[in-house]
Amino acid sequence: MTVGDVTERELIARIQQRLAPAPDWVLVGIGDDAAVVRPERNRVDVVTVDAVIDGVHFDRALVPPEAIGHRALAVNLSDLAAMGAAPRAALLSMALPARLPLTDFEQIVAGFAALAARHRIHVVGGNLTHTPGPLTIDVTAIGSVKRRQALTRRGARPGDEVYVSGRIGAAAAGLARLRASASAPGATDGLATAYLFPEPRVRLGLLLARNRAATACMDLSDGLADGARQLSDASGVGMTIDAAALPVDEETRETLAARGGDSIAAAISGGDDYELMFTARPRTPRLKTVVRHARERLTRIGVCTEARDVVLARADGALEPMPPGYAHFQ
Amino acid sequence: MTVGDVTERELIARIQQRLAPAPDWVLVGIGDDAAVVRPERNRVDVVTVDAVIDGVHFDRALVPPEAIGHRALAVNLSDLAAMGAAPRAALLSMALPARLPLTDFEQIVAGFAALAARHRIHVVGGNLTHTPGPLTIDVTAIGSVKRRQALTRRGARPGDEVYVSGRIGAAAAGLARLRASASAPGATDGLATAYLFPEPRVRLGLLLARNRAATACMDLSDGLADGARQLSDASGVGMTIDAAALPVDEETRETLAARGGDSIAAAISGGDDYELMFTARPRTPRLKTVVRHARERLTRIGVCTEARDVVLARADGALEPMPPGYAHFQ
Repeated sequence: MTVGDVTERELIARIQQRLAPAPDWVLVGIGDDAAVVRPERNRVDVVTVDAVIDGVHFDRALVPPEAIGHRALAVNLSDLAAMGAAPRAALLSMALPARLPLTDFEQIVAGFAALAARHRIHVVGGNLTHTPGPLTIDVTAIGSVKRRQALTRRGARPGDEVYVSGRIGAAAAGLARLRASASAPGATDGLATAYLFPEPRVRLGLLLARNRAATACMDLSDGLADGARQLSDASGVGMTIDAAALPVDEETRETLAARGGDSIAAAISGGDDYELMFTARPRTPRLKTVVRHARERLTRIGVCTEARDVVLARADGALEPMPPGYAHFQ
Repeated sequence: MTVGDVTERELIARIQQRLAPAPDWVLVGIGDDAAVVRPERNRVDVVTVDAVIDGVHFDRALVPPEAIGHRALAVNLSDLAAMGAAPRAALLSMALPARLPLTDFEQIVAGFAALAARHRIHVVGGNLTHTPGPLTIDVTAIGSVKRRQALTRRGARPGDEVYVSGRIGAAAAGLARLRASASAPGATDGLATAYLFPEPRVRLGLLLARNRAATACMDLSDGLADGARQLSDASGVGMTIDAAALPVDEETRETLAARGGDSIAAAISGGDDYELMFTARPRTPRLKTVVRHARERLTRIGVCTEARDVVLARADGALEPMPPGYAHFQ
């Protein structure tokens, strides 16, 4: 049975079955021309949209349906995290090939709903349509933040230190492993999991915002190299990243090195890490509170500079221009 | 030159060139991980998403690029109108085939931007990606309304009168003409224009909301037959629609009749009209104010009934079950 065999109404019902009950601030939910949502008092709205497409952002041959649903929401939660926003509402717009198995549809929705429940983001509406093209999932996420606590890419100043959460290159290494392995990988492969089920750093974003610990922040959906350049450009600073300090673990290094070339360059040019990169004033006490409460490793990886170049400092002291980032677009 | 020949940044720059400057309530606009928007005081947020896909919702062979951009926003503005909401912010997510000519991209954006400017809806963010599939445009629209003025599909009661704006079936007739004509139609063809550049009834939605004139409201994106059933279902009433009262003009009738079959059934089963259907208490003085200020014709076409059937009453007195609506989905 495929999604082409059932009505739109039936598919919507299957989505609704998996969703948590709507909270009281959802005044009108799924089923009307639009949703009506009461804004949070003394907060501003944070809104973002991101799409994942079969053959562009994932490969259905490698990524199980549950992970597709997870990814479609995770990329958006990661954007909210980068702004320091608390997730509230989501709109789920799916373009479905008629031959998509109904069980795959169910699993996509299940993966989406599980992550939504974990971060208390409520699906208030969406859209379903068929497509003659590939599976395409467009998610709009809406969060809220106190106006003065919103994190942007713009506030870094020369002398600010650069931090990154978690580990870098794990998703790229995981994808390389998935591609190499003929059979489907077990859930026990940590690298594959890093690629398949990226964990958006929502809690860390909130900690940074509430403690006003970061001068600028962004997520690393297109890799650290790209992020370093984007944040530097937006803030009008340069950046020197210390290659030896990068949290690229042994397993990632070996997996990426096995493909030939420089494993550090591969790690920072690989996409899909969804870690947060942020800048902070040197020795700021605000960061201590964040470090104490954060669940993920935070690593100081560099410093912002007056000179506008974005530079990778190798362990031997050599300075290189930052390699290009991961280009989803091209 | 195609969109595949230029960078994502270049395409974003071309979009930004066509947009009006952001108002002061857009605290962070295009270019960060997400947009930050100050909610309107004493209003609730109204949010909706809708996608248009080449080969499903339009045919690039018949619809010029400017009309594609117009449509992508119009379908969402129509949803806001149906809720009585004032448009505020939009997110524009486009999945582009690499071979889409750059001039087509520019014209799509121009069509979108022109309608956005007319309704003062501001593009605060979005997403661009390539797709191996058809051109897909996903638009999220955000509006605002006073909580007690929000229109829904749920408030109709037995005895309420049913109204519709504008004319019915014109879009279906326009599409039939476009399909029939070998050459591209001139802008002078009113029916073709009704299909290509549907006018969302934003002002009418606001009038209905502010005057509290409607007990229920929805838009007719999937045709009047579908709308009558949806609104009846949501409100828990039935409906009798008077076929002779339907605003199907002569030109529409002739064009649809030329295809064979019943032109009234074709008019109410055709999609893409984007008129508003609403219900009102009989003889309510609130509606007079709306009629006086509305720019489009408002026609009383039926009545809500206690019995749950949705019925079409023919001129000769015969009662028929409402024919099926237009199914974008299947």
